[in-house]
Amino acid sequence: MTRVKKILNDPADIVSEVLDGIVRLAEDDLVRVAGARVLHRRRIPEGKVGLVVGGGAGHEPMYSAFVGEGLADASVSGAVFAAPPPDQILLATEAAHRGRGVLYVYGNYAGDNMNFDVAAELAAERGIETRTVRVADDIATADPAERRGIAGAFYQVKVAGFACATRDGLEDAARLVERCRDNLRSLGVAVRPGSLPETGELTFELGENEIEIGMGVHGERGVERRELMPADELVEEMVRRLLADLPFSRGDEIAVLIDNLGATTWAELMIVNRRMRQLLDEAGIRVRRTDVGAWMTSQEMAGFSLTFLRLDEELAAALDHPVRAPGFAQGGG
Amino acid sequence: MTRVKKILNDPADIVSEVLDGIVRLAEDDLVRVAGARVLHRRRIPEGKVGLVVGGGAGHEPMYSAFVGEGLADASVSGAVFAAPPPDQILLATEAAHRGRGVLYVYGNYAGDNMNFDVAAELAAERGIETRTVRVADDIATADPAERRGIAGAFYQVKVAGFACATRDGLEDAARLVERCRDNLRSLGVAVRPGSLPETGELTFELGENEIEIGMGVHGERGVERRELMPADELVEEMVRRLLADLPFSRGDEIAVLIDNLGATTWAELMIVNRRMRQLLDEAGIRVRRTDVGAWMTSQEMAGFSLTFLRLDEELAAALDHPVRAPGFAQGGG
Repeated sequence: MTRVKKILNDPADIVSEVLDGIVRLAEDDLVRVAGARVLHRRRIPEGKVGLVVGGGAGHEPMYSAFVGEGLADASVSGAVFAAPPPDQILLATEAAHRGRGVLYVYGNYAGDNMNFDVAAELAAERGIETRTVRVADDIATADPAERRGIAGAFYQVKVAGFACATRDGLEDAARLVERCRDNLRSLGVAVRPGSLPETGELTFELGENEIEIGMGVHGERGVERRELMPADELVEEMVRRLLADLPFSRGDEIAVLIDNLGATTWAELMIVNRRMRQLLDEAGIRVRRTDVGAWMTSQEMAGFSLTFLRLDEELAAALDHPVRAPGFAQGGG
Repeated sequence: MTRVKKILNDPADIVSEVLDGIVRLAEDDLVRVAGARVLHRRRIPEGKVGLVVGGGAGHEPMYSAFVGEGLADASVSGAVFAAPPPDQILLATEAAHRGRGVLYVYGNYAGDNMNFDVAAELAAERGIETRTVRVADDIATADPAERRGIAGAFYQVKVAGFACATRDGLEDAARLVERCRDNLRSLGVAVRPGSLPETGELTFELGENEIEIGMGVHGERGVERRELMPADELVEEMVRRLLADLPFSRGDEIAVLIDNLGATTWAELMIVNRRMRQLLDEAGIRVRRTDVGAWMTSQEMAGFSLTFLRLDEELAAALDHPVRAPGFAQGGG
């Protein structure tokens, strides 16, 4: 089988070298905990509610590069596609804590849930209060409790950064992030697989003319496998499922994220945006902002996801709040 | 042969649908000339020096999505990988003209040069003065007059946007952009080919373990074809060639662009950044800013380019100047 070529050194060093590369994008602001897969801000104000984000590596710039002004105070990374261990999460928690407790935001996956929950217990033993709001935006899974966290994390981390920077207490911050989570819906489609960087092996297989709607960011099975269809039909199918799920209603104002899973061209995303906006116009739904980029990736998987976040005044203000982080504010594309 | 799947409607409509999609990202600011491949700003101040950018489609978000506040006043797009025709360039010129003439910034390719020069003559007949500063940053070609324009356009358009917004006359604006061009050097590497969206056919072929240093953004031959090597070695080779070309000297301050040609992961770009910064430290060269993203793409080609721009006070101020355009200011990654 074909091994997918990548620009790497020793595969065992991937995560560590990526973290070092991120720090060099923002040396005035970021520092890495020596020997750990933890990044944190150099100056976190005393009395601020802390924010820790994290998860498996391999989805860059999510989550490790989302540390910075107005976003997370610390990030913790696992190996590629593997949850970070509790001791590393604890290091990130201690780095972020400034006396007011720490909020955890990460994707709803069994491994992450278990390890962050263990870390929360270890933190409690050290007198650090924590709260958790998991990202669970992927409507490909029917049962909301089992929904995976995908690109909607872009908005949930943004709202959490705002909440932790501006709210007085952990409870109050967590409530706003929960409202974001409850109004957040995403659905993806895969066109070609990505590959594991350590081995070059594909993460799944698709037929020559097949796509998969609802495919997860690690290659998890989706809603259905279909023949490649025209872009407009695909967008109609995805928007229909998204609008029905919350459900979104005529008059709602939303933020839209068009997330590139890796190898899809920006041009294709514009063809998607064109049809999506026609459909939202017809549905009477106003778009306040659109974010386009490769935020939550699955290596070089071709495909994209659409995320709709229903806004109220506070959530809109949270998204408008300026941020500066190496993976967030580098400019568009 | 394998046809690369993409999310498209009728392939004949790609460029038109992409332009419509871009307008929907910034409807308050942008409008498309009906039936043409021209975008322009709705409100361009009288007496402002105009800025028109453009070239073949297929490199999105470059150039069509670089129209906006602080950037271009109008863009003109050809078909995929084909120069725009003179009549369309003239439409963009007329849209951008506010009495003080129009600056053209585009890549140094035979077809673009010919068509923009014809358009300049047509504009002159209509009383519109123009000046041209071609992007010619790719050091893969030895003769500077024949150098292609690649990702360095990101900085050259940024500087041109600043110059045209803040300078009194066309000559004065052009001079600053020429200084940017003269201090700009780029080099790319291809790891896997992209494909033509109309046919799904690959733009070139590479052996299973081969890479090509200096490959152009349309698949033009580069400096040399090599076995895939460790990332650090590749970066050493590229940085050595770049530093020797201007040449850059100890004490220089530069801006660095790490441009994703399409399907390279952000993680790989961070591994590149890590080693590049070590080498620049050793060479005594200071990095004022780093921009990371997929700006000048070649469909889903895997690979990247490095761009170094030697800064002086004015060029640094030009890069710091805030901009807002659908392909530029959407946020990082």
